[in-house]
Amino acid sequence: MQKELRIGLVGYGFMGRTHTNAYKRVNDFFPELAYRPVLQAVCGRTEDKAQAFADQWQFQSCETDWKKLIERDDIDAIDIVTPNDQHAEVAIAAAEAGKMVLCEKPLARTTEESLPMVEAVEKAGVPNTVWYNYRRVPAVTLAKQIIDSGKLGKIFHYRANFLQDWTINSDLPQGGAALWRLDAKAAGSGVTGDLLAHCIDTALWLNGSIKDVSAVTETFVKERMHNLTGKVEKVGIDDACLFHCHFENGSLGLFESTRYARGHKALYTFEINGENASIRWDLHDLNRLEYFDHSDESIVRGWRTIHITDGDQPYMDHYWVPGLCIGYEHTFVNQVADFLKSLETGEPCHPTFRDALETAQVCDAVLKSAAERSWQSV
Amino acid sequence: MQKELRIGLVGYGFMGRTHTNAYKRVNDFFPELAYRPVLQAVCGRTEDKAQAFADQWQFQSCETDWKKLIERDDIDAIDIVTPNDQHAEVAIAAAEAGKMVLCEKPLARTTEESLPMVEAVEKAGVPNTVWYNYRRVPAVTLAKQIIDSGKLGKIFHYRANFLQDWTINSDLPQGGAALWRLDAKAAGSGVTGDLLAHCIDTALWLNGSIKDVSAVTETFVKERMHNLTGKVEKVGIDDACLFHCHFENGSLGLFESTRYARGHKALYTFEINGENASIRWDLHDLNRLEYFDHSDESIVRGWRTIHITDGDQPYMDHYWVPGLCIGYEHTFVNQVADFLKSLETGEPCHPTFRDALETAQVCDAVLKSAAERSWQSV
Amino acid sequence: MQKELRIGLVGYGFMGRTHTNAYKRVNDFFPELAYRPVLQAVCGRTEDKAQAFADQWQFQSCETDWKKLIERDDIDAIDIVTPNDQHAEVAIAAAEAGKMVLCEKPLARTTEESLPMVEAVEKAGVPNTVWYNYRRVPAVTLAKQIIDSGKLGKIFHYRANFLQDWTINSDLPQGGAALWRLDAKAAGSGVTGDLLAHCIDTALWLNGSIKDVSAVTETFVKERMHNLTGKVEKVGIDDACLFHCHFENGSLGLFESTRYARGHKALYTFEINGENASIRWDLHDLNRLEYFDHSDESIVRGWRTIHITDGDQPYMDHYWVPGLCIGYEHTFVNQVADFLKSLETGEPCHPTFRDALETAQVCDAVLKSAAERSWQSV
Amino acid sequence: MQKELRIGLVGYGFMGRTHTNAYKRVNDFFPELAYRPVLQAVCGRTEDKAQAFADQWQFQSCETDWKKLIERDDIDAIDIVTPNDQHAEVAIAAAEAGKMVLCEKPLARTTEESLPMVEAVEKAGVPNTVWYNYRRVPAVTLAKQIIDSGKLGKIFHYRANFLQDWTINSDLPQGGAALWRLDAKAAGSGVTGDLLAHCIDTALWLNGSIKDVSAVTETFVKERMHNLTGKVEKVGIDDACLFHCHFENGSLGLFESTRYARGHKALYTFEINGENASIRWDLHDLNRLEYFDHSDESIVRGWRTIHITDGDQPYMDHYWVPGLCIGYEHTFVNQVADFLKSLETGEPCHPTFRDALETAQVCDAVLKSAAERSWQSV
Repeated sequence: MQKELRIGLVGYGFMGRTHTNAYKRVNDFFPELAYRPVLQAVCGRTEDKAQAFADQWQFQSCETDWKKLIERDDIDAIDIVTPNDQHAEVAIAAAEAGKMVLCEKPLARTTEESLPMVEAVEKAGVPNTVWYNYRRVPAVTLAKQIIDSGKLGKIFHYRANFLQDWTINSDLPQGGAALWRLDAKAAGSGVTGDLLAHCIDTALWLNGSIKDVSAVTETFVKERMHNLTGKVEKVGIDDACLFHCHFENGSLGLFESTRYARGHKALYTFEINGENASIRWDLHDLNRLEYFDHSDESIVRGWRTIHITDGDQPYMDHYWVPGLCIGYEHTFVNQVADFLKSLETGEPCHPTFRDALETAQVCDAVLKSAAERSWQSV
Repeated sequence: MQKELRIGLVGYGFMGRTHTNAYKRVNDFFPELAYRPVLQAVCGRTEDKAQAFADQWQFQSCETDWKKLIERDDIDAIDIVTPNDQHAEVAIAAAEAGKMVLCEKPLARTTEESLPMVEAVEKAGVPNTVWYNYRRVPAVTLAKQIIDSGKLGKIFHYRANFLQDWTINSDLPQGGAALWRLDAKAAGSGVTGDLLAHCIDTALWLNGSIKDVSAVTETFVKERMHNLTGKVEKVGIDDACLFHCHFENGSLGLFESTRYARGHKALYTFEINGENASIRWDLHDLNRLEYFDHSDESIVRGWRTIHITDGDQPYMDHYWVPGLCIGYEHTFVNQVADFLKSLETGEPCHPTFRDALETAQVCDAVLKSAAERSWQSV
Repeated sequence: MQKELRIGLVGYGFMGRTHTNAYKRVNDFFPELAYRPVLQAVCGRTEDKAQAFADQWQFQSCETDWKKLIERDDIDAIDIVTPNDQHAEVAIAAAEAGKMVLCEKPLARTTEESLPMVEAVEKAGVPNTVWYNYRRVPAVTLAKQIIDSGKLGKIFHYRANFLQDWTINSDLPQGGAALWRLDAKAAGSGVTGDLLAHCIDTALWLNGSIKDVSAVTETFVKERMHNLTGKVEKVGIDDACLFHCHFENGSLGLFESTRYARGHKALYTFEINGENASIRWDLHDLNRLEYFDHSDESIVRGWRTIHITDGDQPYMDHYWVPGLCIGYEHTFVNQVADFLKSLETGEPCHPTFRDALETAQVCDAVLKSAAERSWQSV
Repeated sequence: MQKELRIGLVGYGFMGRTHTNAYKRVNDFFPELAYRPVLQAVCGRTEDKAQAFADQWQFQSCETDWKKLIERDDIDAIDIVTPNDQHAEVAIAAAEAGKMVLCEKPLARTTEESLPMVEAVEKAGVPNTVWYNYRRVPAVTLAKQIIDSGKLGKIFHYRANFLQDWTINSDLPQGGAALWRLDAKAAGSGVTGDLLAHCIDTALWLNGSIKDVSAVTETFVKERMHNLTGKVEKVGIDDACLFHCHFENGSLGLFESTRYARGHKALYTFEINGENASIRWDLHDLNRLEYFDHSDESIVRGWRTIHITDGDQPYMDHYWVPGLCIGYEHTFVNQVADFLKSLETGEPCHPTFRDALETAQVCDAVLKSAAERSWQSV
């Protein structure tokens, strides 16, 4: 008989859907787990919307005050999917109440805001994780395994980008429930915290720490109508951010993110070049990994396109049969599975708050470098 | 409040999982539906296995005799996921009992076996559908919309193949629960009914009826150990099947399927060439559709790679945001959604048993053509 | 000091350009050759056009009667680039005059017409070759090497197609200098002799002889204005041809060619699936070969894209540096190089007339099969 | 009757071959030109090597002293293909002697060295051009046409990289005839002048001037045996160079080049994102251009892969028929054609020395930025 893990979800936007879906699917695909998530409560300030979400996804109850949610005895874990400016307060309170805490990325708006969160969960000793879900794309996990196996040898280059095009239209407003990502107050930053943070989390995981960075940011559309005030206001976020960096292992990093790359919807790609082999990956085609192995016989050497759908590839023994794709949502299912597993083993479920703090530090250094037009140490 | 649609599932193999998963997800993604599937019972001859399946997927009960399942008053719809040789008997009995019937493809082993099934559901007037799930890949549905819009003009060519490589090893046995697809008695045919049937269903849907066919089949491995008898027995299935054909609309068709195409896991692709435009699609990259439009300005004319993840593309308003892939399983979710919708509207949910009969007729003509080395009318 | 090989070119159309270009380039890229082609004479019925061609390409003289050309003592080799209906007469006369003969593909319109050509060159004992140039794409030659090395093991499938779209417009006339390929009298057949012949030549080279075939052809546009008569006349050629076949080695073949595949300019592709490995190639991207090797470690196994531009790959030590593409024209340069080399070694330069006869036999069987709607032995 | 343009080539390495080949082919493919290059003389310090080159490529004479070459009356144009450190002296002397000057890229090792070259050709009023050959890839020229047509609208992003992997092996020596590109004295810089200079030239042409840059360079292998001294010496070149920049038009640029990207032979790619459309290109597949047009109907909108082989696409009316690729060497043929044409029209053949000076200025700013770890204005 599986043990219940009673979830209290704070927020119900896009990430509310992806997390909830994951809680509902995980035991179907990972029946061996000792824990079973229960959708105990969803919390949102607007009662009718929170209730509608609860009805659609079958939460057992609904709250409008997150503090009350945290006080409830029948909640084991608090999952935070609010805009970024509310992560810290909720997470710290939850940890202090002894709840496990799962927090949507980025951990918070800044390092300054993130650090107390890390301290809170560590002091409370509660299980915690941050939803940098792309680590759990099977192809990305396989990349990690390949790198850890030593196949790449010394690393020379890491490059990643996350390209979108959805904010090119200058008539798009900023702020509010749907567009808080364009509002610097709610989001903290623009593409840096939203998109580059993903790229940085993966890079730190695959290639180790970053020493220093040199960045440039741009805000192409300087003013947008604000949904909450109804007024045209200055845009405070970065529309695009590019940086290069040194990793601790001596390799050079190159990162770019923008929402002004016409033709790209959510093109997260990375490539890592080692002495002996290279790897690349693309979110638009997430079931594939490309791999080049210089030790192949020279006349038949080339980039391999690996369709990551076989049972011996990460996570894929839990899904279908070779050749049949999984999708974006399964990255969250996999993360819940790993989180539940971590409750059994007592091992941390990475990225923990502590891990995510390093991403915040890189993001801060990037933004400072862009502001000051100088190299910044991380 | 949603109405319940109480499902009785007969069988619990690979397709038992895909269908069950679809029943469990459909209302999360399609909350507007009036019906909600309920996993009332699963039926399998081996009680402990059926019970294990019921436990994993949370069926409310378990049966070992499908006749008893059909007799139950608390079942609205029978879903058949057994090997092909058991489809007909179960489906006819279900229809006669007034149950809705959903049947995994192919409808049955032969046209002869299929026809009484069609007559049974039509006589009973019960809703029915066959799980040719690839129609519900959003990219494939979009192909249908593009064709119906007239963008292609007169059609000249249709080609499709379904290539796998999992039976090359001659030590692989035939028969039994996992490998009944290699056993002619259980499956009826080899790749023709298993893989080509998918290609044919899509083709009939996109390009209309097939007039006549000329085929060749091959059985590369002539004998395999049989799992049920433990003896080496003659292999009765076709390992590969190739045919060309005339469609009623004057276009030429070319079809190929095999389980001996080293390097391909489940490579279902099709391409359709019209006077003014062409379309192609590939299951290994199922979120994309390729499209060529000759009316584009000549110097910038080329095949377009469309990432089918936007809200105005079929089914995608029910999932995530642009750029984020869905997977194989969602084709089943979409089909359940359409089936539930059809119960509201009273319209048939295609492909119906009647539709699937035509695929059976083409398959029969193909096998007869191969056996007699001559053209066969459908 | 290089020996001269004095060329007499009969015809000056598109293939006249590709061959002439090859003669002019070969010693630049293959300086080690003992022979140097000299553009001695070009022959064409229309004097001013022949002279213009001679001027552009720097032929030393010009003839209007091919018989006179053959009589000339200062010509060593006759190269035939006329429409197909004139190949036989010229080739036989040239051989009888003791000239080497290079003949554009297909050898002639039919096997019946081709056989005496083979007999003539063999009786005369003159060096001869047929310009099935695609054998000399470095990637295709590498495919041959890989197959010969045994890497593929037992072959199960060979498939090829050659897709174009340039005759879809029904206003396009047939016949005359530019469009003799649409005129059955001049061409012999449509896509079968023009395009499929290439596919068949490569297939026979890579996969051995074909035993029997089953084909279908179609003429989508039934009548076209004829350029020579000015009248609308029945179209005698096949616009499309599809066939499947058995190879002698037990593999199944699938071939398709058409000029009605909207979106494809000259898409010649082939794929060969063996027990242990597979290969595919595409003329639109001719510097690459795709290769799948099942003996790769399973988690990193996938199709390799090999960029055939390294010095250890066929012919490429004669061109640039890794990563830099060669083009279509170099297939002819390579064939001239091999022909010149064969004059040094005394070995035949494949495909010889004898080799090309087998392609003609397959083409004839294909057309007969289509006409009679039955299998035909080759 | 065509006028002769008598070429004196200084140097005979890899670029000597590409240029010479272009001179020999240009009139075959561009018969309408008024000028015909004549291979009058090649000049090299090592007489037997220069003579061997002259023999292979059929130069009419050979010199060992470039000053004597320049003095000759029978030379119209001096083409410089020496290592970078000899460009300036030869070019200035040639201009002063009234010769036309064609110079292999980069113009020289630095801006300081380049400026007198520009002044010399301008003072002498002689036709001049620099061989940034990638502008003449038909796909790249088409990109220029598309951009100039206004299809892209306001530009947001330009990114380019040039990735190779041929110097990873630390046993590779530096210096000498074959490896002067690894010797800072001869080359001036590493990948910056060799590879990034190409990317910068294209970028300036397509997207206008660069305002300021922020760069990082790395030398992964710190010491290599020097071919000329036989001793292990410090490596003075940059093995990798990355920079971001602002263009004058407000767009952000991102550039990367390295010879340590395992798996890439000569992967020059660029992408440009505009408000309404985007373009990308890849040297490994040089006959294609990818194009995304946001004005396409949304459900069928996607990146187009354009096969640049049609007669209405740049330069392609001079080559074969649709679908048939040209190669790397034709970029040089096209540049010679444009240079010869410029002699007829009196218009400059871009990039001129003046144009190439701007690339040198960007390169210098890049290297200074890397050295000083700060932004640099161009």
